Amino acid sequence: MGFLRDDWFTLRWHSNALEILDQRLLPGHESYLRLVTVEQVAHAIEDLAVRGAPAIGCAAAFGMACAAQQSSSSSLPALSQDLEDARERLSRTRPTAANLFWALAQVGERIQATIQRKGDPDDLRAVVLEEAQRILDNDVVCCRSIGKHGLSVVPERARIQTHCNAGALATGGYGTALGVVRAAAAARRDVSVFVGETRPFLQGARLTAWELARDDIPVTVMTDGMTGHLMSCGEIDLVIVGADRIAANGDVANKIGTYMIAVLAERHGIPFYVAAPYSTLDLSVRNGKDIPIEERGRAEMAVLGNQEIIPDGVPVRHPAFDITPAGLVSGIITECGIVRPPYPTNLRALVKSYDAKS
Amino acid sequence: MGFLRDDWFTLRWHSNALEILDQRLLPGHESYLRLVTVEQVAHAIEDLAVRGAPAIGCAAAFGMACAAQQSSSSSLPALSQDLEDARERLSRTRPTAANLFWALAQVGERIQATIQRKGDPDDLRAVVLEEAQRILDNDVVCCRSIGKHGLSVVPERARIQTHCNAGALATGGYGTALGVVRAAAAARRDVSVFVGETRPFLQGARLTAWELARDDIPVTVMTDGMTGHLMSCGEIDLVIVGADRIAANGDVANKIGTYMIAVLAERHGIPFYVAAPYSTLDLSVRNGKDIPIEERGRAEMAVLGNQEIIPDGVPVRHPAFDITPAGLVSGIITECGIVRPPYPTNLRALVKSYDAKS
Repeated sequence: MGFLRDDWFTLRWHSNALEILDQRLLPGHESYLRLVTVEQVAHAIEDLAVRGAPAIGCAAAFGMACAAQQSSSSSLPALSQDLEDARERLSRTRPTAANLFWALAQVGERIQATIQRKGDPDDLRAVVLEEAQRILDNDVVCCRSIGKHGLSVVPERARIQTHCNAGALATGGYGTALGVVRAAAAARRDVSVFVGETRPFLQGARLTAWELARDDIPVTVMTDGMTGHLMSCGEIDLVIVGADRIAANGDVANKIGTYMIAVLAERHGIPFYVAAPYSTLDLSVRNGKDIPIEERGRAEMAVLGNQEIIPDGVPVRHPAFDITPAGLVSGIITECGIVRPPYPTNLRALVKSYDAKS
Repeated sequence: MGFLRDDWFTLRWHSNALEILDQRLLPGHESYLRLVTVEQVAHAIEDLAVRGAPAIGCAAAFGMACAAQQSSSSSLPALSQDLEDARERLSRTRPTAANLFWALAQVGERIQATIQRKGDPDDLRAVVLEEAQRILDNDVVCCRSIGKHGLSVVPERARIQTHCNAGALATGGYGTALGVVRAAAAARRDVSVFVGETRPFLQGARLTAWELARDDIPVTVMTDGMTGHLMSCGEIDLVIVGADRIAANGDVANKIGTYMIAVLAERHGIPFYVAAPYSTLDLSVRNGKDIPIEERGRAEMAVLGNQEIIPDGVPVRHPAFDITPAGLVSGIITECGIVRPPYPTNLRALVKSYDAKS
């Protein structure tokens, strides 16, 4: 079994452009977009051609590289203003994923350092691209490390429920929650995956099923409302989901529907793990109440294929994320190891040791 | 505000045929099917052109009338054999809804009585049709009574979550859960309804939204995974759902996803009511574990409009119902009043007093 099959990729920099697999068209069509302007990258993020917190961070970093490459500014101050405009544009794409702001801040630090050492504009262009590529490469390294650490929570035989897509498609590659699944499969454990279809964008049905099937890992799709039934029938052993932002107290923002899975897991005594890289932590946010939850538009819910499924004039609610309180989380699997409760202390300790190393 | 607007109907007997509104085509098309054979009726039930436990019961009773009318048998024994074949066919359409078996048993009792008093075949034909019409008329009376009794659990201002469709479209008319909503709106309470879209068949988005909008009752659609978020934000005051079968201990089989709403309602201290007529009770079943849960096919989940949303070869789970344990149910709103815990005693008392009256 090849993990990860290398005949596709989520995103890469190639021939002076950001190439991304257009996730809106999966599983029917495997088609890559070639993006050269910051506006194209911003639009691809907003329109969910690329999604998943770590992948959004990587894409945004390359969006900065696009801005640097496209800018005709010949002075350092002018180019850095163009980059500031790009940063501002990219930071407005989606409000919830911590990794977006983290990646933009990483690139921003390198920009500031280059300005301070009075590099020339082409230096700055090179630095921005180099940093974007480093963020992407590092993301894959982190995912593999998450996979390795996560192994300790996966029994020899495990029916693992996940939600949405926290896989290769949501990251630079390999995946967070699905990174743990891949590591377990590679270790020859008998793992199978259940995933809710994840309405409205259907990341579970379209994306998680697609990428696991490509790796020959058994996956079964259900609707989001079936979790309770399957858990009550004893068909789920373990839950592992990704995260879009983790607050200082351990509250987790993740794809809408995650909270309900966590509540059901607690009721049925099923361990509930969150898998996410360091870049998803946001200790500046005290708890989940302070994490902004994106509300998206009506059309993504009301139109399926070419069919209107909600009568004209009937309003919808469309929060894209929800908050799972720390008390429902058995552990947070990071590239530095598994963080357990009490989260306020242990997340702070993780950040301190991470910052000391880097 | 007119409750219920009289420019449409769920099902009726007209010109020697069962006419039903084809619920597969809502909300885009209002189109009626004209059914004259038992096979056509059975197929309409199996294929969800008509659905909802009480409506299935009514349709099945008229299916018996179709069989009686179509049969060319000129002797009582021959006709009663044709009717037995019809009963057997209709009883195989869907396994979970108690009302289906209840309605067939009601018609069966009238058939037996006619045979015993040695009526002629045309007597028997008339009796079957008369009984089907009585079941339909009575269902609407029951729904209005459920609405009246349910008023006592609806505050002056209430944001009511329901699930699937337990409305006029699921019954002879008026509805069970939506009967309570209609009664509250008619009593000028400030009610609004939230409904999950109810994947995979989208009864919430397509049917509940459609019939409430027709009655000018405010309704908002969400995906099924959004319940937890809305409850945690304090946006839901009360849950009222329908039921497909209620066991002797008060366990409730209802549309898949109901159990998860009940668990979340308990966590957030939100009352959770079930609205259902007497015909949904099945005291021959001790508890929810003994209620058969229908598993439906892959296509209903995997194809949306003309779009394949699950990769080829990836299996699905498709239980159509789940069990909400009695412990999560605040009360069962019936046409005879609201049944409260302890359910084993109080449901038995209700059945005893009902049987004494009829």
